[in-house]
Amino acid sequence: MDFAHDVIAWKRDGGELDEGRVQAFVDGVVSGQVPSYQASALLMAIVLRGLSDDETVHLARAMVASGKTLDLRVLRRPVLDKHSSGGVGDKVTLVLAPLVAACGAIFGKMSGRGLGHTGGTLDKLESIPGFRVQLPQGDFLRQLERIGVAVVSQSERVVPADRILYALRDVTATVDCTGLIAASIMAKKIASGTSALVLDIKVGRGAFAADLAAARELGRLCRLVGAAYERPTTCIYTAMEAPLGYAIGNRLEVEEAWRVLCNEGPADVREVTLALAAALLPLSDLGLQEAEARERALAALSDGRAAAHFERWCYVQGGRWHPGEFHRLAGREVTAAGDGYVGRVDALAIGRAAQLAGAGRRTVDDAVDPAAGVVLHRRPGEAVAAGEPLATVYSRDPARRGQASAVLAGAFDIDEAPTPSANVVLARE
Amino acid sequence: MDFAHDVIAWKRDGGELDEGRVQAFVDGVVSGQVPSYQASALLMAIVLRGLSDDETVHLARAMVASGKTLDLRVLRRPVLDKHSSGGVGDKVTLVLAPLVAACGAIFGKMSGRGLGHTGGTLDKLESIPGFRVQLPQGDFLRQLERIGVAVVSQSERVVPADRILYALRDVTATVDCTGLIAASIMAKKIASGTSALVLDIKVGRGAFAADLAAARELGRLCRLVGAAYERPTTCIYTAMEAPLGYAIGNRLEVEEAWRVLCNEGPADVREVTLALAAALLPLSDLGLQEAEARERALAALSDGRAAAHFERWCYVQGGRWHPGEFHRLAGREVTAAGDGYVGRVDALAIGRAAQLAGAGRRTVDDAVDPAAGVVLHRRPGEAVAAGEPLATVYSRDPARRGQASAVLAGAFDIDEAPTPSANVVLARE
Repeated sequence: MDFAHDVIAWKRDGGELDEGRVQAFVDGVVSGQVPSYQASALLMAIVLRGLSDDETVHLARAMVASGKTLDLRVLRRPVLDKHSSGGVGDKVTLVLAPLVAACGAIFGKMSGRGLGHTGGTLDKLESIPGFRVQLPQGDFLRQLERIGVAVVSQSERVVPADRILYALRDVTATVDCTGLIAASIMAKKIASGTSALVLDIKVGRGAFAADLAAARELGRLCRLVGAAYERPTTCIYTAMEAPLGYAIGNRLEVEEAWRVLCNEGPADVREVTLALAAALLPLSDLGLQEAEARERALAALSDGRAAAHFERWCYVQGGRWHPGEFHRLAGREVTAAGDGYVGRVDALAIGRAAQLAGAGRRTVDDAVDPAAGVVLHRRPGEAVAAGEPLATVYSRDPARRGQASAVLAGAFDIDEAPTPSANVVLARE
Repeated sequence: MDFAHDVIAWKRDGGELDEGRVQAFVDGVVSGQVPSYQASALLMAIVLRGLSDDETVHLARAMVASGKTLDLRVLRRPVLDKHSSGGVGDKVTLVLAPLVAACGAIFGKMSGRGLGHTGGTLDKLESIPGFRVQLPQGDFLRQLERIGVAVVSQSERVVPADRILYALRDVTATVDCTGLIAASIMAKKIASGTSALVLDIKVGRGAFAADLAAARELGRLCRLVGAAYERPTTCIYTAMEAPLGYAIGNRLEVEEAWRVLCNEGPADVREVTLALAAALLPLSDLGLQEAEARERALAALSDGRAAAHFERWCYVQGGRWHPGEFHRLAGREVTAAGDGYVGRVDALAIGRAAQLAGAGRRTVDDAVDPAAGVVLHRRPGEAVAAGEPLATVYSRDPARRGQASAVLAGAFDIDEAPTPSANVVLARE
């Protein structure tokens, strides 16, 4: 029997794979010597048998080694980055990136395009006319040096193993495996040259991790891989039952992020951003503790430096940023059937409605509509009277507005009494 | 997400698949709409989650429906068949087929070419010069009508799903799953038109089933599928620690089978054959009970009718059968290092030695050498003195003789006292 068969059989029987075997299997997948049907059999065995801590680190190493790696040491300063495990209405990067730079640190992100309900960070930035996310590596480095912030699309040559394996996982029901997810997240960050990282791990029905224990296990594995590469990694666990903020959809989220940068905007987006900034800034070379870091970030929001830095960032990356100036689509309101208080707001259903409206992709070839999406008028805990609006869906297509509003209508629970509001930041480690 | 993804996810999470989903997945695999990487992910999920009884029947049905099925009812008599779960030195079909016909029943087999250590039944028959195993369907039927026995190669158009799935299982470490094995065995028999079947399920280190409980589970599932199609199925469980008989290799096994047909030959081969005949003949239309069936088979062996029927069978199928007349290859003996009694004889090691000698295939394109193989001089329980031969390996190639004899040398345990000999037939149901 061949090597790949024996690796699959070993994992099938619950064995642990050593670094050499993981490396050789991943190399074989990238070179094409290990066919996709053997790769998917191993992936299913991994999903059902699990990956050990060591195997998770081996896999991350093999993925990093599968392609090009960036060396950002020419900047002679730490390059900070942030990763979110994915949530509905999550526009935190849009606020955090210029905020961190306004505080004197360097924030550099190479981002992939996901298949989320709503667009990824790149889609959100591209909803600003002219914003370029494809920069040559030299321009990326020069921009980081000049203004301390850059968010660009990840080169195809970085972690090709992750792209191949992810495409396979997506169609073979082998996405949900904490070790595979941790290796994938961390390999991309390490290969992109990130010096230090904060992870925003979402917890709740709208997230990969349904409870804090599952989220902490993902965080533990990511920090383990970070430690193996000496890339300090901090995890913030945040709630993802309801969407973050009121806006879901690419340009709609940029507008909301702008309000947060202007020291306004929804409290939950602001709170998550501040928690991430307070965790991230101490990983730079500014000599800040967490409490000072939070103070500095608060000051940058209140004195306008963060918003000014966002404008500068857009300008340097080609974007023409004029708040509120975009083509507004026709909207359709969903109203409350009775009086009461908004209880559960189902983030997944709202994400699906935004996707139906045109804000997200269903296949990699889909184009996203920058102006499409959903705006909530009420969030959990807020009072509402019968006939008052709960949300509006914006779409170019009347039929899609209808479909999306039907989904939206089922996303809100109206209770008789208000539920006490919970903290959005659940834990940190 | 697509249909195949959802089927995989359902099985991954331990769910049971209904008949429609199994059917649609198998259809998709055969048509190519379900790519091999999705099929192998499902196979691994099945190996680790198991198949329920119902799922096993659904899978057998889907495989039968994937291709051509033969209708042997024109013969107006039951067509009996036998299947062995695979053992080293298993030449029982060569004896059983003409014996059953000599007793007045019809024995018809469509056989595939396996990748065993030693050749399959077709390879053994083809070691008789001129023996044709590829017969048009009409010739197969006429031969069954005329002489009551025919063994031919299975058409590619019968159970194509099994061929595709087996090739995938072979390279993705998903062979070892009782439900998959049962569905595969039974689908081929049912599609071939078999009316009633006896299964020889091997138990021991040289077999798929290491113990009787595992063997019985395979038997139970096969009988379940047989019952779903109203094809009476009896299971005989036989020991496969040591090889069956003394000869391992295609022509060497035909010679040994001939000696059993002539009422001589090794006791274990004779005993397994009689047990199978006694189980199979009552499934015909002869009105025989098991005890009578055994008597009739014994009589056919002792009065020469079984041997005469073998000669007639060879003649009709084109074979020129002259016992003992074949090109003998150079042999190399392996001798005992000390005095004692032969204890364990490792069937797997002996199979591997025979394969090295040229008796079996390593890939589907390998040619087998009809005269290559191994002959044992001692079987478990027999006394041996230092320097006396334990086995001889026959091969065309001196290097392979050397490799095979090294493997053979490790296959024998010599004990101080004889181990009491165990029954070869362990159970029946």
